[in-house]
Amino acid sequence: MKRTALIGHLNDSHLDQPVTIQGWVNRRRDLGGLIFLEVRDRSGLVQVQVEPDSPAFAEADTLRGEYVVEIGGQFQRRPESQRKGGLADFEVLASRVTVLNTAKTPPFELDKGDSVSEDVRLKYRYLDLRRAEMQKNLLLRSKAVAAITEFLDTEGFVQVETPMLTKSTPEGARDFLVPSRLNAGEFYALPQSPQLFKQLLMIAGYDRYYQLARCFRDEDLRADRQPDFTQLDMEMSFVTQDDVLEVQERLMAHVFKRVLDVDLPLPFPRMSYQDAMDKFGSDKPDLRFGLEFVDVTEIFKRGEFKAFASAQTVKVIAAPELTRKQIDELERIAKQNGAGGLAWLKRDGDAFTGGISKFVGSVTAQLIEKTGVPDGGTLLFAAGEWKKAVGALGAVRLSVRDLFDLAKAGPQFHVSWVVDFPQLEYDEDNAAWTYMHHPFTAPHPEDISLFGTERQGEIRAQAYDLVLNGYEVGGGSVRIHQPGVQAQMFQAIGFTEAEAREKFGFFMDALEYGTPPHGGIAWGFDRLIMVMSGANSIREVIAFPKNNRGVDLMALAPSPVDERQLAELSVAVASGTSD
Amino acid sequence: MKRTALIGHLNDSHLDQPVTIQGWVNRRRDLGGLIFLEVRDRSGLVQVQVEPDSPAFAEADTLRGEYVVEIGGQFQRRPESQRKGGLADFEVLASRVTVLNTAKTPPFELDKGDSVSEDVRLKYRYLDLRRAEMQKNLLLRSKAVAAITEFLDTEGFVQVETPMLTKSTPEGARDFLVPSRLNAGEFYALPQSPQLFKQLLMIAGYDRYYQLARCFRDEDLRADRQPDFTQLDMEMSFVTQDDVLEVQERLMAHVFKRVLDVDLPLPFPRMSYQDAMDKFGSDKPDLRFGLEFVDVTEIFKRGEFKAFASAQTVKVIAAPELTRKQIDELERIAKQNGAGGLAWLKRDGDAFTGGISKFVGSVTAQLIEKTGVPDGGTLLFAAGEWKKAVGALGAVRLSVRDLFDLAKAGPQFHVSWVVDFPQLEYDEDNAAWTYMHHPFTAPHPEDISLFGTERQGEIRAQAYDLVLNGYEVGGGSVRIHQPGVQAQMFQAIGFTEAEAREKFGFFMDALEYGTPPHGGIAWGFDRLIMVMSGANSIREVIAFPKNNRGVDLMALAPSPVDERQLAELSVAVASGTSD
Repeated sequence: MKRTALIGHLNDSHLDQPVTIQGWVNRRRDLGGLIFLEVRDRSGLVQVQVEPDSPAFAEADTLRGEYVVEIGGQFQRRPESQRKGGLADFEVLASRVTVLNTAKTPPFELDKGDSVSEDVRLKYRYLDLRRAEMQKNLLLRSKAVAAITEFLDTEGFVQVETPMLTKSTPEGARDFLVPSRLNAGEFYALPQSPQLFKQLLMIAGYDRYYQLARCFRDEDLRADRQPDFTQLDMEMSFVTQDDVLEVQERLMAHVFKRVLDVDLPLPFPRMSYQDAMDKFGSDKPDLRFGLEFVDVTEIFKRGEFKAFASAQTVKVIAAPELTRKQIDELERIAKQNGAGGLAWLKRDGDAFTGGISKFVGSVTAQLIEKTGVPDGGTLLFAAGEWKKAVGALGAVRLSVRDLFDLAKAGPQFHVSWVVDFPQLEYDEDNAAWTYMHHPFTAPHPEDISLFGTERQGEIRAQAYDLVLNGYEVGGGSVRIHQPGVQAQMFQAIGFTEAEAREKFGFFMDALEYGTPPHGGIAWGFDRLIMVMSGANSIREVIAFPKNNRGVDLMALAPSPVDERQLAELSVAVASGTSD
Repeated sequence: MKRTALIGHLNDSHLDQPVTIQGWVNRRRDLGGLIFLEVRDRSGLVQVQVEPDSPAFAEADTLRGEYVVEIGGQFQRRPESQRKGGLADFEVLASRVTVLNTAKTPPFELDKGDSVSEDVRLKYRYLDLRRAEMQKNLLLRSKAVAAITEFLDTEGFVQVETPMLTKSTPEGARDFLVPSRLNAGEFYALPQSPQLFKQLLMIAGYDRYYQLARCFRDEDLRADRQPDFTQLDMEMSFVTQDDVLEVQERLMAHVFKRVLDVDLPLPFPRMSYQDAMDKFGSDKPDLRFGLEFVDVTEIFKRGEFKAFASAQTVKVIAAPELTRKQIDELERIAKQNGAGGLAWLKRDGDAFTGGISKFVGSVTAQLIEKTGVPDGGTLLFAAGEWKKAVGALGAVRLSVRDLFDLAKAGPQFHVSWVVDFPQLEYDEDNAAWTYMHHPFTAPHPEDISLFGTERQGEIRAQAYDLVLNGYEVGGGSVRIHQPGVQAQMFQAIGFTEAEAREKFGFFMDALEYGTPPHGGIAWGFDRLIMVMSGANSIREVIAFPKNNRGVDLMALAPSPVDERQLAELSVAVASGTSD
């Protein structure tokens, strides 16, 4: 017997007709001699009524939660008083109940999954995945995959699978290694990203490439990281930065429209890295709300308040009225993010009170005018070295957002670009220049001459990040296609020619054989889906994630393995060698 | 400057208009003071003419093969005498030539790639991938991905990514292992297939699942294997075998139509495993041609030819006229495939000559009638134990196909199902029963009572293989959804309860919590694309394959790694422990 339709697809057209449904018993209630069931599949849930004289009653009476059932009956409207709209207006009057499988009592109640410890949810992931929230998230993810594939195929992008067993290049993050049995003593690395391969595909003439690529980084797992993750990887030939951004905007709009029926306004606003840091203290600013920094460095310069007078930068945000307790909490955030403290002022009419008010008497009017802080409002300051000051105030800004739910007033989704990143960063710890995106990012053509000069920190990269609601959901760049520029870049970050060749020799060779101008981007797909679905963690949009020890609590991976397996691979566990 | 279109998309509508193209110099000829270029991108190739007085001439004169160029000019029809149809009817009269990048001389001529050693092609894969043949294959593959995604999304299948770092279960093939740094002394395994995870997704209520899944098996690499490969993995709930097959047929037809514009006739023919072996000596019979086996066991039974008289099975195929040399070669094939030799007869009018003719006098008329061998034709026999006899003759049949190009007369693509595989096979080496598909395959319901009896070898599985032109391109089954049947199956293949729990404990637990009836299939995607594109090897449809030592000759993976990396992972190279 086949089902008439998924439960959620039953509708007016089935009214007063016999239907067959299949699914799980979500709930059973016995009332006035009748049995009421909720039967659920991934699409929805419907009430089933079994009357005492029904031929289905005896079988229905054996049912418990999570049993798998097939039910035949009449699809009918519920009494008017019980209608709540949608499927809740209907019910199935059962004439046939078949138990397709029984079920043990689940270790937790599915509709209370939110209050269950994550360890339990992960151990019984197959039950956790039955929850409506998880099903919504994974179905949304699947829809996004289909929408992306449709768009990119139509636009002439070629899907290519790049190697999963590749060469270890101790660059960036730590590699996961895979011992080779056929080549004893040698190891593959799982790919951190398909970066070189997608550039090689451009060299090979594929013109436009995409792949939903599994990537691996063996990092210490912070709260919301996974050892493997998925990126939507793309690359295009014969393009400028504008060309890449234009296609990406249409793709993103297509995905939001198809998956969420949300219209994203095009084009996305663009902001330079410098502006993003200057105004929001973040290279992934949440632009759903304001609280833009006001620069008051000049107001305090050479003034009476010594702490500000000599600061490279003094920035301020005008927050709503804050309690002393809230200010203390924000100060904690500021300190956590590198500030020495959090100076503040409360406006009281034409004066300021509290905080540093005794030092600002002479600039009160100027501050009120420049910040526009309303009466009762609070000014929050960060001062000091530019990058530290804006970074700390950026964190404070997000905390103020959360305190007052400021993002709610904005659009549900705000997408923007951050562009013009620096090509090079000075790494204080190693006293050396390093790349900001990766070593294959192209500098702005007019800045190339700064390589090797004192001003190489000013070189702007043709790099761009895609920012959604304060999350970086994508990042990419135009790539270096000229071997000479690539050599300059390697030199700038301190690679000797031998080192460069050892790590990237085959790629440097390839660059010499006719490389077209090209550029691309990768989306952090897990994070994008997390934001689109309103989830709090990427674990909520991954079917079988690891916990923060890298453990799959359901399958119990990783695990010890047989000595025989290790011997075949010519490796041994070296106990005690790690610390 | 942007290109007008990909080269292959230029057409009548661009005639006598200015166009801009971008691509690679495929060839340069200088003739009568003019420069003729062939310029190529992934979509096609067009002739470019540069006249001596053109402003583009000086730049054009610097061009060499594989330079990357942008060319502006007039799109015009070539002189009538030179038209060959399609893009060859047109040319671009250049007014502007820009070198976007230079190129070293490639180590091999691209249009002679077929005659270059595969090692060289793999080392310079980025050049090899420029060849039209490789581009055709990879573009076909990409189109297939898009067609599959479109179909399955429309049909309500949910794309779910399953774990890449999972638990080692030394079952079937050898695992690739990944040491865990955070859990010293423990290892992940790369997945051999998402089998358990897709069944868990059915238990979790996802109803229909698909994924283009990367899978890993650390086997000794035969000619056409890769350490990692791609399967199109699918699973469905609340289905019978017929339901699965019906969806698969529509999917396959959709893919062939979309990608190759080929109409596959539906439904696909189905043949039992028994019939396939009996008639074609293969569980993946090539049905593009006949040469069906004729069973002549009864004709020889208790007859004068002792070797056949006592044989369990005597099968024959009626081949065209064969030379002695061809017969010798076929005998070699038969022996390679387990036969003691290859008995043969040549029909000469109403008699047979050669081979075993002196033993068949009394059954000549019967043989001619039953086999229908034409005058001059050759009969090829296999006799002995059934499975050995049909297997050897099956190999001979394919060799005869190749000798006479018999497949050519049939349809370009022939797809069929092989069904009703045995549930269990007796493994002579280990003197034990084992599964034929995998331990989760459901038996035919009416055969379940045979578990544990002497007749358990007769249990038929609800398993099916998809066969295309003699290649197995898919295989699947209805799965066991009842814990009790799963336990019987584990017992039949000799797992103790403890062993079963150790390997599959979490899965056995999951089965108890309300498992719907379900079944699925996986397509060998690389092999399917190989057959669709007419390639000889899966390496021709994989962008960056390994050689048969598991080595990526371009990236030089695997490779030795730093001691420091190994120490972090708590492993060491154990030299000499492997042999």
